[in-house]
Amino acid sequence: MKEFQLIDQYFCGRGPQRRDVKHGIGDDCALVQPSENKQLAISCDTLVEGVHFFADMPAWALGYKALAVNLSDLAAMGAEPAWFTLGLSLPSVDEAWLAGFSEGLFEAAEYYGIALIGGDTTQSPVKVIAVTVNGQVPEGKALTRFGARSGDWIYVTGTLGDSALGLDLLRGRQQAQPNQKVAPEHSEFLIERHYRPTPRVLAGQALRGLASAAIDLSDGLVSDIGHILNASNVGATIEVDKLPLSAAMKESVALEEALGYALTGGEDYELLFTVPEAQRGALEIALAHAGVKFVRIGQISAGGGLKLSFNGQPFAPVNKGFEHF
Amino acid sequence: MKEFQLIDQYFCGRGPQRRDVKHGIGDDCALVQPSENKQLAISCDTLVEGVHFFADMPAWALGYKALAVNLSDLAAMGAEPAWFTLGLSLPSVDEAWLAGFSEGLFEAAEYYGIALIGGDTTQSPVKVIAVTVNGQVPEGKALTRFGARSGDWIYVTGTLGDSALGLDLLRGRQQAQPNQKVAPEHSEFLIERHYRPTPRVLAGQALRGLASAAIDLSDGLVSDIGHILNASNVGATIEVDKLPLSAAMKESVALEEALGYALTGGEDYELLFTVPEAQRGALEIALAHAGVKFVRIGQISAGGGLKLSFNGQPFAPVNKGFEHF
Repeated sequence: MKEFQLIDQYFCGRGPQRRDVKHGIGDDCALVQPSENKQLAISCDTLVEGVHFFADMPAWALGYKALAVNLSDLAAMGAEPAWFTLGLSLPSVDEAWLAGFSEGLFEAAEYYGIALIGGDTTQSPVKVIAVTVNGQVPEGKALTRFGARSGDWIYVTGTLGDSALGLDLLRGRQQAQPNQKVAPEHSEFLIERHYRPTPRVLAGQALRGLASAAIDLSDGLVSDIGHILNASNVGATIEVDKLPLSAAMKESVALEEALGYALTGGEDYELLFTVPEAQRGALEIALAHAGVKFVRIGQISAGGGLKLSFNGQPFAPVNKGFEHF
Repeated sequence: MKEFQLIDQYFCGRGPQRRDVKHGIGDDCALVQPSENKQLAISCDTLVEGVHFFADMPAWALGYKALAVNLSDLAAMGAEPAWFTLGLSLPSVDEAWLAGFSEGLFEAAEYYGIALIGGDTTQSPVKVIAVTVNGQVPEGKALTRFGARSGDWIYVTGTLGDSALGLDLLRGRQQAQPNQKVAPEHSEFLIERHYRPTPRVLAGQALRGLASAAIDLSDGLVSDIGHILNASNVGATIEVDKLPLSAAMKESVALEEALGYALTGGEDYELLFTVPEAQRGALEIALAHAGVKFVRIGQISAGGGLKLSFNGQPFAPVNKGFEHF
């Protein structure tokens, strides 16, 4: 047990100091002061070694990502990050690993202004990281999944599929397909996209009052848009030719394969959102202020499920991941 | 993955329906409405199979206890339970286990009026249960560990040591010491105290404005009071002869052993709190309203660490657990 108390050294007193944290780590509970006229957005994600990440994932990347994937959920609600708790279950106390993990965690915490207010460190046969985040959003202004209406335009931020290709590169894709050599600078970019996703927190806040529905892309575009279609009881057409692809993606794999990654790859942590025609002008201005690239990729329909088109023709993706849907 | 989606069946739409939950399970985040002029108390605890509980612990007991131990942290702050999230990592989807686990979990949730607002179910080599609770407490009224002053009286709720003796009975203590046979009704009571602790939520709220410090007893009295002494920079004398023992405890083991359980056994989830002399009368009235038994067991001193006495004489406990302190 004493060994596990050492862990506190890596977490106490680090990260942003927020004035709304009245009593942080070190009591039975943390005490925080919510802002007036705001609602709380709360989400939790658990990462298990061998299930959500491989044992050889760098500690800093795991620390960064454990928080980032939760921040992405706050972004999808248009919430401002505030506080988080960390449940850390580890087989042993490895100080080099803890130093790296905490560095990555607090890099994300500092950048997004979210304070670690409590946690629990325990022994466990495998690494399990459970993060719960709290964000704040003005009353009635949260983005949800159920507001999409027929005719609304569908947008995404950033580029899609990079993370999944980065993961494949890490898992030895180059060895399996030696003819498709990926340039070192592209490989570095794609792996970085896998290890250090960029939750679209400011974009999410900018979308309040403009987007009719929003979700963050964690399982892959085709899977995640299904949640909006189900919750909103609508259909959609995605123009696959409009999907945003990075230069690294386009120059590393064939277009057909790139589109497969973009449609079903997962772990993009970009935002997908729908916007009524009347809000398109305001949207352009708001997201330009947030400094986030975005592109229109389709339109909501009254029904008919999800359709994919490519230059106006029906499109059937090749990626095997699509079968799961 | 699909198998794990089944899990939602056991958790969605159950437990108390709270009007301050604006948007529950099923979006990127839950949305809740905090009360005006209140602060939030937030705590998380992780339970790992083989570390915090044995594989043969009944599912209902684990479900109940996973929430109860977190409610006990809210009680120790004087907070009113509001919302919680559940991270559930399981080796497989065992529907009988899930039915039992969720039954125990929602028994506690209903009784204490706390709503499940979100969660994450994942695969894992071992069972890991991560609960984060949110409570509310009027601004500036939270109980903490750092307010104890020399001369304050020390109290505990309920009886001590039952849970640890109950655990020993479960682990086969009777076989090891056949001469000390425990009556079946006592055994049942003691095991129930281990499986179904009673977080002192109402007592904690009643102590607001009266207690100068409070903590819940999870690791054992001697260990846990140390947190108050350290945080408040004071010492204490515990009158061991005043420790509250259940009839089951007194009639099942020798007094010396009973006191060892009470001092160091752990998992009591009773409240230990300190009260200035001037508040003693108000305390009696307030706790009588809450319907919780409590007893004075000692006094805070200006320094000198923790002293134990028995009928006015120095006392050295026999329980080996004491060595760790």
